[in-house]
Amino acid sequence: MLAMAADQPKLGAMSVMERIVKLGRDDPRRIIHSLKVGLALTFVSLLYYWRPLYDGFGIAAIWAVLTVVVIFEFTVGATLSKGLNRGLGTLLAGALGVGAQHFASLFGQIGEPIVLGFFVFLLAAASTFSRFFPRIKARYDYGVLIFILTFSLVSVSGYRVEKILELAHQRLSTILIGGATCIFISLFICPVWAGESLHNIIVSNIEKLANYLEGFGGEYFRYEDRENVDEDSTHNKSSSLQAYKTVLTSQSSEESLANFASWEPRHGKFSFRHPWKQYLKIGSLARQCAYQIESLNGYINVPTDIQVAIQFRRRIEESCNAISSESGKALRILASSIKTMTNPSLSSKTHIENATAAIDELKNTLKTGYMESSDLLGIIPDATVCCILIDIVKSVEKILEAIEELGVLASFKSVEPTVSPEKSTQLLHRGIVNPLFDGECGDHVVIMVDNEVEVGKSQGLEGKPSNGEMVCK
Amino acid sequence: MLAMAADQPKLGAMSVMERIVKLGRDDPRRIIHSLKVGLALTFVSLLYYWRPLYDGFGIAAIWAVLTVVVIFEFTVGATLSKGLNRGLGTLLAGALGVGAQHFASLFGQIGEPIVLGFFVFLLAAASTFSRFFPRIKARYDYGVLIFILTFSLVSVSGYRVEKILELAHQRLSTILIGGATCIFISLFICPVWAGESLHNIIVSNIEKLANYLEGFGGEYFRYEDRENVDEDSTHNKSSSLQAYKTVLTSQSSEESLANFASWEPRHGKFSFRHPWKQYLKIGSLARQCAYQIESLNGYINVPTDIQVAIQFRRRIEESCNAISSESGKALRILASSIKTMTNPSLSSKTHIENATAAIDELKNTLKTGYMESSDLLGIIPDATVCCILIDIVKSVEKILEAIEELGVLASFKSVEPTVSPEKSTQLLHRGIVNPLFDGECGDHVVIMVDNEVEVGKSQGLEGKPSNGEMVCK
Repeated sequence: MLAMAADQPKLGAMSVMERIVKLGRDDPRRIIHSLKVGLALTFVSLLYYWRPLYDGFGIAAIWAVLTVVVIFEFTVGATLSKGLNRGLGTLLAGALGVGAQHFASLFGQIGEPIVLGFFVFLLAAASTFSRFFPRIKARYDYGVLIFILTFSLVSVSGYRVEKILELAHQRLSTILIGGATCIFISLFICPVWAGESLHNIIVSNIEKLANYLEGFGGEYFRYEDRENVDEDSTHNKSSSLQAYKTVLTSQSSEESLANFASWEPRHGKFSFRHPWKQYLKIGSLARQCAYQIESLNGYINVPTDIQVAIQFRRRIEESCNAISSESGKALRILASSIKTMTNPSLSSKTHIENATAAIDELKNTLKTGYMESSDLLGIIPDATVCCILIDIVKSVEKILEAIEELGVLASFKSVEPTVSPEKSTQLLHRGIVNPLFDGECGDHVVIMVDNEVEVGKSQGLEGKPSNGEMVCK
Repeated sequence: MLAMAADQPKLGAMSVMERIVKLGRDDPRRIIHSLKVGLALTFVSLLYYWRPLYDGFGIAAIWAVLTVVVIFEFTVGATLSKGLNRGLGTLLAGALGVGAQHFASLFGQIGEPIVLGFFVFLLAAASTFSRFFPRIKARYDYGVLIFILTFSLVSVSGYRVEKILELAHQRLSTILIGGATCIFISLFICPVWAGESLHNIIVSNIEKLANYLEGFGGEYFRYEDRENVDEDSTHNKSSSLQAYKTVLTSQSSEESLANFASWEPRHGKFSFRHPWKQYLKIGSLARQCAYQIESLNGYINVPTDIQVAIQFRRRIEESCNAISSESGKALRILASSIKTMTNPSLSSKTHIENATAAIDELKNTLKTGYMESSDLLGIIPDATVCCILIDIVKSVEKILEAIEELGVLASFKSVEPTVSPEKSTQLLHRGIVNPLFDGECGDHVVIMVDNEVEVGKSQGLEGKPSNGEMVCK
């Protein structure tokens, strides 16, 4: 890499600068975070420079620097998690270390190092093994590390430094200062909340799925004019559709954010015990849906030159378009329901019902009428697309249910759905519906829905997910 | 958790013990690793106890303990990566820190802390920002952390401790002792190689896919006797089939193992510059195939009570069984080809060719003959299964190609394939084939194949993956 940079010094510098700018522009919180770390470090360095403080802490002040460097993380949750882990690990190990040192001293000048060595071996091995437990690994890995470190340091250095309690006091208070500095800066200067990030990731993942499904019909059902289409716009459109691919691999970042979020105090719209685990459930349902879209995506741009296939594709076009775009719309509403933390509005269900109605239409098309030719082979890809689309509607229903559960757990606000006017007539017999403002919000009508009716309906939906009986057409 | 444990002390203790035993039994290397960490820590503690050493190093000996606790990781590669990162980060930051301290001293008693504070702020912010680059994050994250830490410590403590070079020397040598201890123990006592682990994970992932595909036919094509089947055996069989699910989410562990593996020296069958990136490519192709299997899996146990569907299923059964089991066999041979580091034998291609032949048969079945009824709906799930199976064969071909590339990159041994006799006649016209031992290896015939012919064939296969022209039937 160095050799490459030397070969093309200017080009290299340019692209590095560009990358730095891009990195900062993509997420300006990164720049702020870097400045915050610089600030925290400069602040604890004061411990050294300021004579009264230095006289109090002495060489132990390095522990404040060390603490800041090691525990200051990008999100508040991660910083808190590391800080608390470090604090607890140090306290526990410090106490145990002093005890071990005292116990070992009973064995005399020669016995003491042997006993201490044995303790260090035992605790280090046991603690290291405990880090293999997935639960401990997820939440307390750093604490266990600090435990081993502190125990070794205290029990071993106690053997030399006679004033062990004073040392422990100095070290603890400097660690406390370092930790408190980090937590303070992390909490009060442009905080980056793991919980909020998780919330946003889940919303954006569902939106990516919605984008794909809304755009799918347009991409899949293009027969002619392929040459006439502006290349650039096609490319841009396709690449915006492909955004769903990141959903396939977002599991680990979701999990670590949920873990950090559980350490965070109340912030913004999120209470201390916000149901972060439910977000993971929704995330994994969204990923299931993304797997299905991944299969679906394999059938885009498969050329169809066989006549029978084109005929068949035209027959299913309307229903498939409807299934896909209605599921997409439902997902978009669900995403915005999480975003605004309101219960999923009736209109999301209406879209699912529309999709289910389109499935029934599609099924009718498939059941009857067709079969001018016996060439099943040519239509298999299209039949597969139908099948996957039907499965996607089931996934969307599962996502709806999981979001309704989230609504209960996180006490989402009750619904004030905005439904487009052509749907509102369909809804009038389905609950206590009071059209409040008509025409005031552009082409939207705001409708109040009784909460109990809402719940009753959602259970009905849960029971019979896709047999078409809940369609209101 | 503590409250829970107090409620059911005996039960809790039992299950904790069971879990510990299970964790150790699942992977005994975990126990050995824990003992190795204990050993390393006890060893560096000697620095304290042994007076001649202590007189040389003084309080700086704590850095040896700290180094061991922080850099001793499970795999050799991770330990080396952390150790080298720590070493380089410390050296670079130490030199810079001394320079900064010297430069700052030019500004007099009052100017010095201000200039130093400015340097600390600048370098801490810049280094923290650099950690957001994915490349630096992946390989040098820990080094940058240590860089910030050491720079702050050196430039700041230099202000107090006059004998800065002596201190640096002490600290470096203790870090060196700690690091060398870890690396020595990690390398020479039951080493756990990241490279070998990656190799094994890729092999086992491909085997899991093979298991699924070999078992798929038996699971999918069961019409009657569902009640008569022994429940337990069904359950066991299904759960062994479901093993492929772990392949869906193995990306991050594969990537980190590949990263650590690139730090490892020659070990066992793997050279220093073994093409670990190609393993990642194979891994991601295997994951693509796992996504397809995930779709396929959705159609198992979907009841078929419609007569027309059962009729259709019986028609496609033979071809689908063949496609699935032949792809499975091909994958199993490919897995063992990676395992033994030999070029993929001809028989893997034969199995793919058999699968392709079965696809052609299936296509013929679908093209002609069928259509006693016009109920397309009933047969859609089966048609989808056909379509996915055809796609899976394409994925298997891609995996084969990637493994052949790996064979070239890692100079796999040349082929001595074992082919079952009924296939060998088909192969006789396809290369320079010398039957050597007949009947000696049970029902197998060993065949020597000229390497060049081998390569030529694989390229042909690349060009036309699934149009049936490479089938020799």
